Amino acid sequence: MKMSKAYIPTLKETPSEAEVVSHKLMLRAGMMRKLSSGIYTYLPLGQKVIQKIEEIVREEMNREGAQELLLPALQPAELWQESERWNDYGPELMRLQDRHDRDFCLGPTHEEVITDLVRDEVRSYKDLPLNLYQVQTKFRDEIRPRFGVLRGREFIMKDGYSFDVDEAGLEENYQKMFDAYDRIFDRCGLDFRPVVADNGAIGGSESHEFMVLADSGEDTVVFCSECDYAANLELAVSDVKFVIGDEEKAEIEKVETPGVDTIESLAKFLDFPESKLIKTLAYQTEDGYVLALVRGDYQLNEIKLRNLLGAPNLEMADGEELLDDTGVVTGFAGPIETSGEVKVVADPSVMEVVNGVTGANEADYHYVNVNAKRDFDVDEIADIREIKEEESCIYCGGDLTLTKGIEVGQVFKLGTKYSEALGATYLDNNGKAQPMVMGCYGIGITRTVAAAIEQNHDEYGIIWPAAIAPYEVSLLTLGDGEVLETGQELYQNLKSAGIDVLFDERKERAGVKFNDADLIGASVRITIGSRSLAEGKVEVKVRSTGDDFNIKVDNVIDKVAELLNELD
Amino acid sequence: MKMSKAYIPTLKETPSEAEVVSHKLMLRAGMMRKLSSGIYTYLPLGQKVIQKIEEIVREEMNREGAQELLLPALQPAELWQESERWNDYGPELMRLQDRHDRDFCLGPTHEEVITDLVRDEVRSYKDLPLNLYQVQTKFRDEIRPRFGVLRGREFIMKDGYSFDVDEAGLEENYQKMFDAYDRIFDRCGLDFRPVVADNGAIGGSESHEFMVLADSGEDTVVFCSECDYAANLELAVSDVKFVIGDEEKAEIEKVETPGVDTIESLAKFLDFPESKLIKTLAYQTEDGYVLALVRGDYQLNEIKLRNLLGAPNLEMADGEELLDDTGVVTGFAGPIETSGEVKVVADPSVMEVVNGVTGANEADYHYVNVNAKRDFDVDEIADIREIKEEESCIYCGGDLTLTKGIEVGQVFKLGTKYSEALGATYLDNNGKAQPMVMGCYGIGITRTVAAAIEQNHDEYGIIWPAAIAPYEVSLLTLGDGEVLETGQELYQNLKSAGIDVLFDERKERAGVKFNDADLIGASVRITIGSRSLAEGKVEVKVRSTGDDFNIKVDNVIDKVAELLNELD
Repeated sequence: MKMSKAYIPTLKETPSEAEVVSHKLMLRAGMMRKLSSGIYTYLPLGQKVIQKIEEIVREEMNREGAQELLLPALQPAELWQESERWNDYGPELMRLQDRHDRDFCLGPTHEEVITDLVRDEVRSYKDLPLNLYQVQTKFRDEIRPRFGVLRGREFIMKDGYSFDVDEAGLEENYQKMFDAYDRIFDRCGLDFRPVVADNGAIGGSESHEFMVLADSGEDTVVFCSECDYAANLELAVSDVKFVIGDEEKAEIEKVETPGVDTIESLAKFLDFPESKLIKTLAYQTEDGYVLALVRGDYQLNEIKLRNLLGAPNLEMADGEELLDDTGVVTGFAGPIETSGEVKVVADPSVMEVVNGVTGANEADYHYVNVNAKRDFDVDEIADIREIKEEESCIYCGGDLTLTKGIEVGQVFKLGTKYSEALGATYLDNNGKAQPMVMGCYGIGITRTVAAAIEQNHDEYGIIWPAAIAPYEVSLLTLGDGEVLETGQELYQNLKSAGIDVLFDERKERAGVKFNDADLIGASVRITIGSRSLAEGKVEVKVRSTGDDFNIKVDNVIDKVAELLNELD
Repeated sequence: MKMSKAYIPTLKETPSEAEVVSHKLMLRAGMMRKLSSGIYTYLPLGQKVIQKIEEIVREEMNREGAQELLLPALQPAELWQESERWNDYGPELMRLQDRHDRDFCLGPTHEEVITDLVRDEVRSYKDLPLNLYQVQTKFRDEIRPRFGVLRGREFIMKDGYSFDVDEAGLEENYQKMFDAYDRIFDRCGLDFRPVVADNGAIGGSESHEFMVLADSGEDTVVFCSECDYAANLELAVSDVKFVIGDEEKAEIEKVETPGVDTIESLAKFLDFPESKLIKTLAYQTEDGYVLALVRGDYQLNEIKLRNLLGAPNLEMADGEELLDDTGVVTGFAGPIETSGEVKVVADPSVMEVVNGVTGANEADYHYVNVNAKRDFDVDEIADIREIKEEESCIYCGGDLTLTKGIEVGQVFKLGTKYSEALGATYLDNNGKAQPMVMGCYGIGITRTVAAAIEQNHDEYGIIWPAAIAPYEVSLLTLGDGEVLETGQELYQNLKSAGIDVLFDERKERAGVKFNDADLIGASVRITIGSRSLAEGKVEVKVRSTGDDFNIKVDNVIDKVAELLNELD
């Protein structure tokens, strides 16, 4: 493609709407434009990257025997009522009525539709397993769309669903999809980690997220420096042995702590280390109140607590209602002298605190010299803390590292949640109806574009992994006459060699062309200038390493092919 | 793909919901399933055909320098209010509100969104021309969805838009797209005609529809047997010279015709040929009433009348309101003795009638011996009739033929309608703002799938043109042991030769396999049976012609390649 004809409206200035670097660069490189909040047009350059990723996804899905289909975006409300998600999904589900006042939604995901399809078609265990996927536009009415396509309202996903006769079959399909995802993100040239993930509201028994490592990621990934262990911080565990100190237990004592209602101010006020404080957080669940205790130098992990309690709708409790029901005073909360029904869950870190501090459930007062079991009862001891950097791996004892990541894919053992709700059964070899065992598998295509940029850029622009670069080569001519003629010829030859090249033959200053090339981020830049051309040479420069070479015109194709091969 | 693993749920029975053959066969061949009225899931077989067509479309669009992008499906109401289509489009436009109560619609077409994009990006005549397209899901809330994907509510389209500095530029882009469409439908292996078409409500100066010829088509296509002339019946003209007869004009006379209010019954009652009757139809426009007159043996063409009057909202007028305003009596309407403001438009066929018959604007009465000009005034004489088979071409005098067609594509000179409404201007070389001159170009991708089937099928199933067949070859094994082993080997060899093959290795009866192969309609069927295999041979059969060959196993690949080559 010639730059003078290409619709690549690059921008010098960063639009004020953009917060993160991928959003800024996608706008500046002319990859996309905003139509409405969280809704983007993908311009030709963006569309090319999307299609390259889609192609890789399709190849690897097909390789594992998954079959592509296309489900509708418009979904009748009845199906979502059957699964009970019509109400549960909340305002993120975009709803509309047709001209006959029938309710529909725009699919944010397709468990209902695919389960409905399969329940009508699959009769026997002989028709299973099945693994079906699609690449499609999804809709989700985010309360606060931001970060460009990282959190949009209309976005492209690959979503796939497997159907098996039993857990063993699911395990097999799950592993196939896990392997396919591994190859997909590897082929996309991304530095990523599959991590153990929370099942979230969707239910199911096992899940992995595929995280692209990038400082700007919203998620935190924990991984072991020695073994394969990796998990989302939400679920990560570590090998800390808590040992009860040998200090003698002192008499419990109530002390006045006026206005001191944070861990930091309390530690300072009492001149205690944070590890002596016991943090008490109050929650409400459908089954009643819960006090969650962690040591003051740890953070509570709400996901772990939610999963422990089996309480998807965990909510923090505070204020007068909490006080009336339990005697717990917000800001000075503690497990001592509560009333009513309160379940106390303590992290193991709390159990080893000798002569610690808790709130006294009375404004401006704390207890000191508190000891678990002696001074308050604990209903359950469980890991409910967020782990910290440099704790040890429970599998191998290696050091754990925390890093930021962007979720680009997730594999999920759904089990029978949807097949039971929608009656998707098959007849087993005894002729008995059994619910199909399902898995679901998603990749955020547009999200992967943004994650690739978050991971691969510098101050000048994008540095695409070669496999997903919109163009492999930027060819620049600085001047006309022989320079332009050589450019034209090289352009044709590169195309004939099957190399995807953007030919910047515009009458623009060298600086403009260099800036645009850096911004767009093709893997290799070829620059033809009159001075080196006088010696029969052109410059070949690698975008990612900055390595540059003066190459004879006749040898350029070979050199570029070699460099692209190395980059792949 | 192996049939035992493929998700191709063929059906023996035709589902009752299907009326037309493409709908029946797409369901029976396991290409698609209905989710809701006019909303379909494309199963793997359907998706494969869609993708093959999309690939051809993309190649030919790119060849003409059109650039692919992807516009959002969710479109803010504001843009449609700017173009005034938010109200004009009516209930076919699917509307919804987001969580902040902002109005959106689901794009049935993208003139507004693309014009909005380009008006923000294009500044100068140097940035033009531009030709942008996308392949995308569209939404249209049809009042009566039917005929499967021929009239659906969610469907896939390629829509493209060109932007030029002037009409000459538009003409050039229009011609490029016309040529691309010609190649696209040709490569799809379809028998089609580009025909002159009506511009419809969308406005603009010139348009062609691409019609796939098929008896089941909803449109009628007129074409000349000698020259290239072809038009939608809505617009077709012919070379009929109407000559005033030499019969002497007789005295006008009012006759009683009790209850005789149709042309047929009137001709019979009076024993007059229909060519002596003058049909009078009353219409209301924004500019007042119009009486349209055609000779009794012709049909009025409302599109021609609408275009003549420049009245997009032409509506038939009748009953008491018509009577009160104009004195015209429904069922006995005529141009004589009208009152108020009525414009009379007569087809040339009417002017040659000597001593004809018209309604008397009085219930149960007609006038006979009526002569135009003598007995009533005509405000305008213009071609407003539907042409008939075997009239002559106005360009070459050749015979005209009428045939049925299915519209699969349309190219359209939009002009400045949208660029003026949305202020999409460029600065010309004098620095003066000018509206861009637009064209738009659509192809119904899913519609093309159905049209291909309407044109290419027999009582047993689909007969795909080779280029868009979901599989080029169906390979059947009738038996196991050596038959199955030979099948496995041939399957691998066909795949290695780059041939798209569906291998039916199921343990099913021969009849089931033959039926499924005919239904699915791969271009070539290879059957391996034990008897001919004993002689080292297999059967190779062409789906479209029925030609079959007994071929040595070693020569099968060559033979199949040769046959596919011939079919392409």
